[in-house]
This record gives sequence, C-alpha cells and structure tokens, in this order.
Amino acid sequence: MRRTSMANSLCAMERTLDVVGDWWSLLIVRDAIAGTTRFSEFQRSLGVAKNILTTRLKSLVAAGVLEIVPTSDGSYQEYVITDKGRDLLTVLVAMAQWGREYLCETCSVPVEAKKGRPLKKLELRAQDGRVLKLQEVLISSFRLESK
Amino acid sequence: MRRTSMANSLCAMERTLDVVGDWWSLLIVRDAIAGTTRFSEFQRSLGVAKNILTTRLKSLVAAGVLEIVPTSDGSYQEYVITDKGRDLLTVLVAMAQWGREYLCETCSVPVEAKKGRPLKKLELRAQDGRVLKLQEVLISSFRLESK
Repeated sequence: MRRTSMANSLCAMERTLDVVGDWWSLLIVRDAIAGTTRFSEFQRSLGVAKNILTTRLKSLVAAGVLEIVPTSDGSYQEYVITDKGRDLLTVLVAMAQWGREYLCETCSVPVEAKKGRPLKKLELRAQDGRVLKLQEVLISSFRLESK
Repeated sequence: MRRTSMANSLCAMERTLDVVGDWWSLLIVRDAIAGTTRFSEFQRSLGVAKNILTTRLKSLVAAGVLEIVPTSDGSYQEYVITDKGRDLLTVLVAMAQWGREYLCETCSVPVEAKKGRPLKKLELRAQDGRVLKLQEVLISSFRLESK
C-alpha cells in the first residue's frame, strides 16, 4: 500500500521513506554498499522473490541510489551503489546500533574497516557541535516547511 | 510479505527492520516522539486506514516501542513513546538528513528545540572519536555473528 502523497511531502523523512521505506530496499542498499552487484547475488543473499527484487532494483535505479553498469563483456548488468546511495550508510548504522542496543546484544553491526571494531554510537549534535539530548530535538516541525 | 527469519537474524539492522521496517511504523514513531498519543490523532496525521493503524500500534506496543497508558478518567487509552522508542530518533534524523540533502532542499528536518535550527549532519565515528569516511566502514560483517 502506497501513500501517494509521500513523494511530494515537505517532510524530508517522508521523502526518504518514499525511496527506501521498506525492508527490501534497505536490505538491497546494504548489500550493494557491501559490494554485491549481480541480480543473482542479491537474490541469494536476501532470499527474495525475483519479481520483488526486479521491482525494487528498478525503483532504486530510478531514484539514483543504484546505477546500472554493463560488464566489459556485456554478458550481464551490474548494479552499483552511487555516492547518493552510499550516503544511506548513516541510516543503516543508526538502525543497526538501535537493534544491537535493544534487540540483540550479540548481533553484528557495521565496523571500522581497519580495526574491525563497532563504530561509536551516533550522536545528535547542534550546528556548533554540542551534543544534544533526545529531548532537546524538536520533531514537531517535521511537517512544516523549513525556514 | 514477511521474511520470517528476520526476527531471529544475527544482523542488528535486520532485527530493527523487523520492528520498524515499514513506512507506517516509522511514521507512527515519529508522531509519537512529537507528542501524538491518541488513536484518532495518529489516524488524522497519517491518513492511514484504521485496521492498518491498529495492527501497527499493537506491534509497536508488543515490541516495547510504545506503551499503553490509560487516561485518568479511563475514557480512552493513550499510546506513549518509551525510552526505547525515543531512541529511534537517531534513525529518523539520519533519514531526514539524507532526504534533505538528496531529495528536497526545502523540506523540513528535526531541529534543535532551543534555537530552531537543523542539527549538524550525523558523523560516523570510531570508538576513539575519529570521524570516519564512508569507505572506512565495513558493512560486510553485517551478516556474521559479532565477536
């Protein structure tokens, strides 16, 4: 079920949900950032039906999150994460850290490549760098046009 | 369509997706953090069908993201965000910042309550506080059990 208004919403989060607001899309983005490029690899990794995977890949390409790159011999296409898509890593890290904290202490989270250690917990900061408590962030303006 | 394995996944992000991995759930969480508590308010704000809203609220309560609080006169129930639920704010901020950067420059984002200004962009940091580039984060271990 789609809320058709989402693509024109004035709320930045709703806009993002419109592009990646379902399981499969975010899982595809995760795998693509991790280096998966082939249809068959996505399918195997995610255990997703071909028709669903086809739809989601198409919509992620249309949104500029993935791009299609033909292989040198032209035998198949690769789906490669774009810079725009890679920047969703922060969303994935935020979700993973929450899951690790509240749902599953032994679960895997993204790590610093060099040392293999989990990242520091993301902090909400003001423009000047001050760390903010959750209560110091206002979400009610979400729906209003920003100034 | 549900991937039944998600609730037992060893990937922290998949666990989180299992709890809030759809539009409605995240939008409900957003509204709840912003102070919405009544069924009718959620319905009006989100424009969502009653049966969908009922299902999602029930599942967010079961997951400990919302809790049901009877009003003093017992005339209706309120859905109140828990500390666990409020901590999803970081996920919402990450999504909003991405949407603002790539989809809609004029869209609203969460702001610092006191000054009304958008937050600083979230930074990925190592345990010792060093800011990491996207390329310095390894996501391939997502699927492996953490050590």
